Amino acid sequence: MLDIKVTKTETPKAKPAKDDPLLFGTIFTDHMFIMDYAEGKGWYDPRIVPYGDITLPPAATIFHYGQGVFEGLKAYNAVDGGVNLFRPDMNAKRSNRSSDRLCIPEIPEEDFVQAIEELVELDKDWIPNEPDHSLYIRPFIIGTDPFLGLRTSAYYKFIIILSPVGPYYPEGLDPVGIWIEDDYVRAVRGGIGEAKTGGNYAASILSQVKAHDEGYSQVLWLDGVYRKYIEEVGAMNIFFKIDGKVVTPMLNGSILPGITRDSVIQICKEWGYDVIEKRIDIAEIEEAWKNGTLEEVWGTGTAAVISPVGKLRMGDEIMQVQDGGIGELSQRLYDEVTGIQLGKVKDTRGWIVKID
Amino acid sequence: MLDIKVTKTETPKAKPAKDDPLLFGTIFTDHMFIMDYAEGKGWYDPRIVPYGDITLPPAATIFHYGQGVFEGLKAYNAVDGGVNLFRPDMNAKRSNRSSDRLCIPEIPEEDFVQAIEELVELDKDWIPNEPDHSLYIRPFIIGTDPFLGLRTSAYYKFIIILSPVGPYYPEGLDPVGIWIEDDYVRAVRGGIGEAKTGGNYAASILSQVKAHDEGYSQVLWLDGVYRKYIEEVGAMNIFFKIDGKVVTPMLNGSILPGITRDSVIQICKEWGYDVIEKRIDIAEIEEAWKNGTLEEVWGTGTAAVISPVGKLRMGDEIMQVQDGGIGELSQRLYDEVTGIQLGKVKDTRGWIVKID
Ligand SMILES: Cc1ncc(COP(=O)(O)O)c(C=O)c1O
Ligand SMILES: Cc1ncc(COP(=O)(O)O)c(C=O)c1O
Repeated sequence: MLDIKVTKTETPKAKPAKDDPLLFGTIFTDHMFIMDYAEGKGWYDPRIVPYGDITLPPAATIFHYGQGVFEGLKAYNAVDGGVNLFRPDMNAKRSNRSSDRLCIPEIPEEDFVQAIEELVELDKDWIPNEPDHSLYIRPFIIGTDPFLGLRTSAYYKFIIILSPVGPYYPEGLDPVGIWIEDDYVRAVRGGIGEAKTGGNYAASILSQVKAHDEGYSQVLWLDGVYRKYIEEVGAMNIFFKIDGKVVTPMLNGSILPGITRDSVIQICKEWGYDVIEKRIDIAEIEEAWKNGTLEEVWGTGTAAVISPVGKLRMGDEIMQVQDGGIGELSQRLYDEVTGIQLGKVKDTRGWIVKID
Repeated sequence: MLDIKVTKTETPKAKPAKDDPLLFGTIFTDHMFIMDYAEGKGWYDPRIVPYGDITLPPAATIFHYGQGVFEGLKAYNAVDGGVNLFRPDMNAKRSNRSSDRLCIPEIPEEDFVQAIEELVELDKDWIPNEPDHSLYIRPFIIGTDPFLGLRTSAYYKFIIILSPVGPYYPEGLDPVGIWIEDDYVRAVRGGIGEAKTGGNYAASILSQVKAHDEGYSQVLWLDGVYRKYIEEVGAMNIFFKIDGKVVTPMLNGSILPGITRDSVIQICKEWGYDVIEKRIDIAEIEEAWKNGTLEEVWGTGTAAVISPVGKLRMGDEIMQVQDGGIGELSQRLYDEVTGIQLGKVKDTRGWIVKID
């Protein structure tokens, strides 16, 4: 149990206006959580302080060697009262797995969740009251050793910041176009693909920019070895409904083990679907599309929750799915998961952590 | 031509003592160079200021998505007077190539070199006068956009810091042991391997720690696809002398195009060696070792210049080279390159840039 020292801001900021579109990740709340680490001392000085700039030596590890990890989850104003977190223990676990890969010291799961809870509790008035709004929570850890050699850092900072966000789909679920990337590679087995760490995203920017310029909202990555097995989307895992079955790439070490992915798999199984986690050849998807059994495609991730995919572009071929519309299962999953998060649907799986 | 505004420190630090071992990358000089970038405005406000902490928003791109690149080169007190830089134009070019891959705006080569020159000129008293000492120069660029979405940053900082360093081999050239990594992967074709960017080093830390614990100084990476072609060492390119010929992995998109590598290739060719840049199967090295034609192995990089390799460990097998000693060509290359850098050997190739 952390003993978190709280220093409240003396100059609270104005909350965003009711009609502010709250573009993802641009506005931050009044406070942030910080905890330091030093070799030999462990994690120390957990504190909540006014949101503001941080000061680091220019030689700090994170500026040169990318030794850092991050997480992403959301807090919701529940319709049944109080504030809901969705499976924060899963973020705590994944953060530690990412840290292991990057040689960053772990944080006890309870401490990780407690820090989130206390910070959200303090800034809960920042959670917009409009429908489908939420508070995006970004915990991250950075190596701060002022040393230019390549070794594991002796100093770290664990920081949590909060950002109020509007609905991902202001006008209701809206299918996206996905660009299948056959040129660049995000991650490869034996690499850092399954860790939530900056390097994977740095590797993605160029493709992401290219796909955007071509009018596609995200990139679908293929594996780095054979360049034909489906991995994941820029910030989502990917699912296919083929001939009544739900199919998604297995966790193979190079894709992020999404928490929404895990939730969707459990729900689909409960609903009686066959869910198959396996290595998926892109040719298999193309074939299913050609013979009319590719019924639905959707992405899963904290930001959009469920993102129906209306078209997939591979080279010169554009595969339209569901006539570019929203599949029945995609819609049902969206309603179920967001329903649980917002307290509209009963949480039968113990996924909600209430902050009061 | 940059118009660099200089603010000198009013509290110069004490220089390190004569017998300070000057551990690589731990001590920094009195000043640093900073230049900012904003979308629509370009690079602006080039300045030299007292060395000190930098202040950034916690949402800055570099803390989350690893959008950053860096360089490394050295300044030497030349025995023939003045201060020598070794091929700084090559660092400027490579920095821009790294930036291209990471969607970071380029810096004109002349500006990059000018910034280094003016900063080194100001802090040149920090270059130790002992033999084989130098000033390590670390230019780096970081994305500073306070925005949590994955896009290319709209704001950057270009910073240069300086660190006096002692000789890499205080007692003269000393062969190192290298661990051939067959578990983890650093980079893969289509990825960011050829860029000097944090993510590649983040991916390396775990192996580096493991190799160290086993008593090896660095890791030799194999390719990410077949896991058998030789790539490079943690912070060096690798060369083999086999049956009189010089062999090194070709630039394939996943290894760093080392400036020392390029220099050594040119020198060896001038000296009449066959130099072969190609895809090298690790089995080929093993075979050469077994049949006695593996004459020398060495790494090349700014820090150590030439690093003779005395043994290579692959799985349970330890391949000793040159009975663990220093090969003739390795020594000759070390003497030639460091000779040019220190002004002891005539610079016939236009590699030295003098600062006076
Ligand atoms: C690369 C990547 N894959 C998948 C996901 C989805 O994971 P989660 O459902 O935990 O948000 C994310 C986003 O968080 C991501 O960045
Ligand atoms: C991964 C890697 N390879 C090779 C090198 C050698 O490059 P250079 O000779 O330009 O220093 C370095 C170090 O700078 C490096 O970090």
